[in-house]
Amino acid sequence: MKKYRVVFKPKGITVFAGAGSTVMEAAQQAGLPLEALCGGMGNCGKCVVRIAGGAGKPSAEEKNHLAPEELKQGYRLACRAKVGGHLEVFLPDPSETKAKGFFKEPGKGLKLHPLVEKTYIRLAPPSLEDQAADSSRVLQGLGLKSQNLPPSLCRKLPRTLREADFKVTLIHDERGLLGVEPGDTTARNLGLVFDLGTTTLAGYLVDLTSGKLLAGDAVHNRQAAHGADIITRLAFVRREKDGLQILHRVLIDALNELVEMLLGKANCRGEDIYASVVVGNTCMQHLFLGLDPSSLAYTPFVPVLKEGVTVSAAEMGLKLNEDGLVHVLPNIAGFVGSDTVAVILSTGLDRSRATKLAIDIGTNGELVLGSRERLLACSAAAGPAFEGARISSGMRAAPGAINKVFLRDDIAFSVIGGGKPEGICGSGLIDAVAILLETGIVNKRGKILSPGELDPSISPQLIRRLLRHQGANAFLLVPASQTAHRRPILITQEDIRGLQLAKGAIAAAIQVLCRCYGVQAGYVEEVFLAGAFGSYLNPKSALRIGLIPPGLGERITPAGNAAGEGGIKALLSRREIKRAGKLAEKVEHVELAAFPGFYELFAAEIDFP
Amino acid sequence: MKKYRVVFKPKGITVFAGAGSTVMEAAQQAGLPLEALCGGMGNCGKCVVRIAGGAGKPSAEEKNHLAPEELKQGYRLACRAKVGGHLEVFLPDPSETKAKGFFKEPGKGLKLHPLVEKTYIRLAPPSLEDQAADSSRVLQGLGLKSQNLPPSLCRKLPRTLREADFKVTLIHDERGLLGVEPGDTTARNLGLVFDLGTTTLAGYLVDLTSGKLLAGDAVHNRQAAHGADIITRLAFVRREKDGLQILHRVLIDALNELVEMLLGKANCRGEDIYASVVVGNTCMQHLFLGLDPSSLAYTPFVPVLKEGVTVSAAEMGLKLNEDGLVHVLPNIAGFVGSDTVAVILSTGLDRSRATKLAIDIGTNGELVLGSRERLLACSAAAGPAFEGARISSGMRAAPGAINKVFLRDDIAFSVIGGGKPEGICGSGLIDAVAILLETGIVNKRGKILSPGELDPSISPQLIRRLLRHQGANAFLLVPASQTAHRRPILITQEDIRGLQLAKGAIAAAIQVLCRCYGVQAGYVEEVFLAGAFGSYLNPKSALRIGLIPPGLGERITPAGNAAGEGGIKALLSRREIKRAGKLAEKVEHVELAAFPGFYELFAAEIDFP
Repeated sequence: MKKYRVVFKPKGITVFAGAGSTVMEAAQQAGLPLEALCGGMGNCGKCVVRIAGGAGKPSAEEKNHLAPEELKQGYRLACRAKVGGHLEVFLPDPSETKAKGFFKEPGKGLKLHPLVEKTYIRLAPPSLEDQAADSSRVLQGLGLKSQNLPPSLCRKLPRTLREADFKVTLIHDERGLLGVEPGDTTARNLGLVFDLGTTTLAGYLVDLTSGKLLAGDAVHNRQAAHGADIITRLAFVRREKDGLQILHRVLIDALNELVEMLLGKANCRGEDIYASVVVGNTCMQHLFLGLDPSSLAYTPFVPVLKEGVTVSAAEMGLKLNEDGLVHVLPNIAGFVGSDTVAVILSTGLDRSRATKLAIDIGTNGELVLGSRERLLACSAAAGPAFEGARISSGMRAAPGAINKVFLRDDIAFSVIGGGKPEGICGSGLIDAVAILLETGIVNKRGKILSPGELDPSISPQLIRRLLRHQGANAFLLVPASQTAHRRPILITQEDIRGLQLAKGAIAAAIQVLCRCYGVQAGYVEEVFLAGAFGSYLNPKSALRIGLIPPGLGERITPAGNAAGEGGIKALLSRREIKRAGKLAEKVEHVELAAFPGFYELFAAEIDFP
Repeated sequence: MKKYRVVFKPKGITVFAGAGSTVMEAAQQAGLPLEALCGGMGNCGKCVVRIAGGAGKPSAEEKNHLAPEELKQGYRLACRAKVGGHLEVFLPDPSETKAKGFFKEPGKGLKLHPLVEKTYIRLAPPSLEDQAADSSRVLQGLGLKSQNLPPSLCRKLPRTLREADFKVTLIHDERGLLGVEPGDTTARNLGLVFDLGTTTLAGYLVDLTSGKLLAGDAVHNRQAAHGADIITRLAFVRREKDGLQILHRVLIDALNELVEMLLGKANCRGEDIYASVVVGNTCMQHLFLGLDPSSLAYTPFVPVLKEGVTVSAAEMGLKLNEDGLVHVLPNIAGFVGSDTVAVILSTGLDRSRATKLAIDIGTNGELVLGSRERLLACSAAAGPAFEGARISSGMRAAPGAINKVFLRDDIAFSVIGGGKPEGICGSGLIDAVAILLETGIVNKRGKILSPGELDPSISPQLIRRLLRHQGANAFLLVPASQTAHRRPILITQEDIRGLQLAKGAIAAAIQVLCRCYGVQAGYVEEVFLAGAFGSYLNPKSALRIGLIPPGLGERITPAGNAAGEGGIKALLSRREIKRAGKLAEKVEHVELAAFPGFYELFAAEIDFP
């Protein structure tokens, strides 16, 4: 058999692989095993590499996972690409993989006009002929006549001007001067986006001059120690005397840690961060600003603050430049937060002629329906199933979670980060239940049938997975021998009930929005699925379980981290901040609890299609 | 002799006084001696009382001291008014005397539009049909769409709204909402003016709803412990590591003490003070804001900050309402402060068709010349003589100071607060020197002549007062037996030198301003003399010593506490604050040190006319 030289970059490890073997096999030979969550079936799309040299034509699976542009650049799935000549294989940089595809170029098409800008200026020193005050001198430098200058800035002004011989960089925003730095520091102007999730706090460090993302990272929201979800945290605030202060403090500390991590990754300094944008659900926004969110706990669920606000980084205790600004985007309602505003910024629903739907699924699903004419939003209390909580083997979409399930003769699955599974996350659960529905193991009502009730055509490998668990039927997804913790991963009858409630809430919410908007669901031309969940979710499975109305399967677009992307847009363009302000006013909030017939619709959507 | 009943109010003490006796004599009879600094000659104007009943026609002296309006209301000089029927005599409330005539009705003619206003509003509570956020609800109540709300305000919002059943008072300024109070508190809206002098810190408590002055008071500027004048304090800041912080802290503490005093007097609460305006010289303004004033110490004397700024009371550590605002008026130059801007607001130079001059005399004299076409300002380093410093028996215009000197057969004088004198203040010194010039005891060059050199017509009582002191001639104003401290009060040759330097600096400054403006001094139609000094100063004496150019004597108007009055105007009307901002830009600063020929002019003005 003819052998070809395969060089794996960047390490330069070289092997000789037989013609027709896969690049993945060559990688194993080189001691560089690639992620192959689907077992090398071309299904999971995790083994993307870039290949230079003869590797044959892309397979159908590759065309499925990679854009024509990416294929043109040499991106391939290692499990499908076959060695057909000497090759160079560029293995992905782990951090690059994380960022790749996560954002759809947030700065694209934006005219850069960041929240905070820098201008270098050489001022004339004062003289008896020009006795202008230091303040007037710098304001004139910016072409401003007057401004309510913060005393903290004025305190630093005389020394900075004189030490730098009146050659300084002025830091300014829309409202005027924020700070003055000696010399020319225009090359260092950084911004941050914080995406405050109930479970995860994500941060993105951005170069405000180029608009480029320098680093992204996330930390666990340690408020979870005082309540896993919003409702429990609200109870904590109402119960504990210093509850609000505790949650606020824990959050700020975690964000400062996140800032450190991002700065470390990008090798930058916190004092160069002058701008920051915060998005998040309304409760998190309140906790960030130290506002009492208690009124979100009871009807009519009104927030304390809706409008966007700009506060100083120093006032918030954030370790950015002390003159830096933090802009908190506005929210829409008590359970439709600024993250939803950011999703609209990113998906452009407010600029679309066609009617579109954006869904950001979490413990609360937020939905926005509409076009540039009108936008409706609601929050659906889906419950925790989509986040893998209160599911027998559930976990969130983190390393170790089964995030995709495939049916071949038997069950196959992919695990986030590879290795043995520890549990199953929302998208995996939806895949699994879709398969169980498709095979008839679970019926329309959500019941797991007993072996005797099943269609005889069902593969015996599947039937063998049925067992009894706590007095009900259950499906063995992964036997104990194949899991990380040596406990089986099951789909129980309770798990399916939880999923039914969750999908029923979202499906009913879509119905309500469509009715309020006066359209049939089929009229919706595009469905954006935002967030990590939306990226992992298999649209076919979502359709199969009835999460998405029939007919919309082909119209689903994963929107990536749409909230973070919208936040970056706002950071890079003041017009986007204004747009966010208008959106928060324009979007009509639909309170599902107040919609006549909502509970009937919800009950009807609990069954599977 | 016919006797009439004279009742002294408010105590109700009654005496029967002979027809034709003076009210002052009746008061002595009642054991209620009145201040009679001039010995009851109708000269000092200190014995003002209000009389109901027959007291004859006002004398020439009374017409001199009291406005027609005051005479109509029954105000009289007790030493001149004669008992001609049964009388009620209203003795002045000591605190009222202090305020009376001090301000020329600061709110007069102003459309009240105070810095901070209150609006009572009954909001609809939220419901499922009206889920507006607390913030949006109150902003709608004010007719505002959006605003950058301070988090501190939002923190209090939900509880205040709910405890008051959504009936609240909104506190707002031009830029939007500042605070929310439960119920209707519109009747309690107070403001403060701080006039920051180098020696004295004055404060005025004002009712922002009615525009009325509730209380005025002053405390010693305890920064004096670190330097009696600006130059010494600047040296302290530059020498001591924490000098700036020390002076800032001492100032804020003293202002808080002043606030307490004012609140006590008016029986009000600090939490009802939402607005405050600060005027003062540029150095004091810098120390108030914690800005380093060091650059005022050397040429070209530029300040750090010129523009007006609004800061929060909480940020400044002032014990007003924590959401309250402090507006610091803008300054004109390093030695022409916001107190001068306030003097212009109060005297209306910027609205005058005619060319006018305003002089605020202290250690530094600030002068403004011009009309609505153009305004010029300068600072003249008069030295300390006008404030009674570095004068052998000098003291500032405080109780115990001789503030007026009269010539009869012999010397007579009035003492602030009555009693035996402790020293002499600026206006007294000017009177005394004017008399010595008029009598020929002092010649044009400022020399105190020896008895042998004098004109023989001079009263022997005056000649007897000439003596030798430290090797030079001196004039004995008050012998030791008649002073509070049993030391004589002298006018020494050195004192006259000090006064010559002081008056020469002011007179030269007037010359420079007139030259820059392109007019002769005689062209000036009105001369405002601002401050306590200006009120005590006898215009004839000022002319006699050459402080004011010849021909302007009849055109002098004492402007009272013009700086404080201008501050109150700004507090009561946002238009005045805007006017102040424009003034600071419009007024052209003339740097005397840079004016060609200034020192020659100054030297020429040292001689007396």
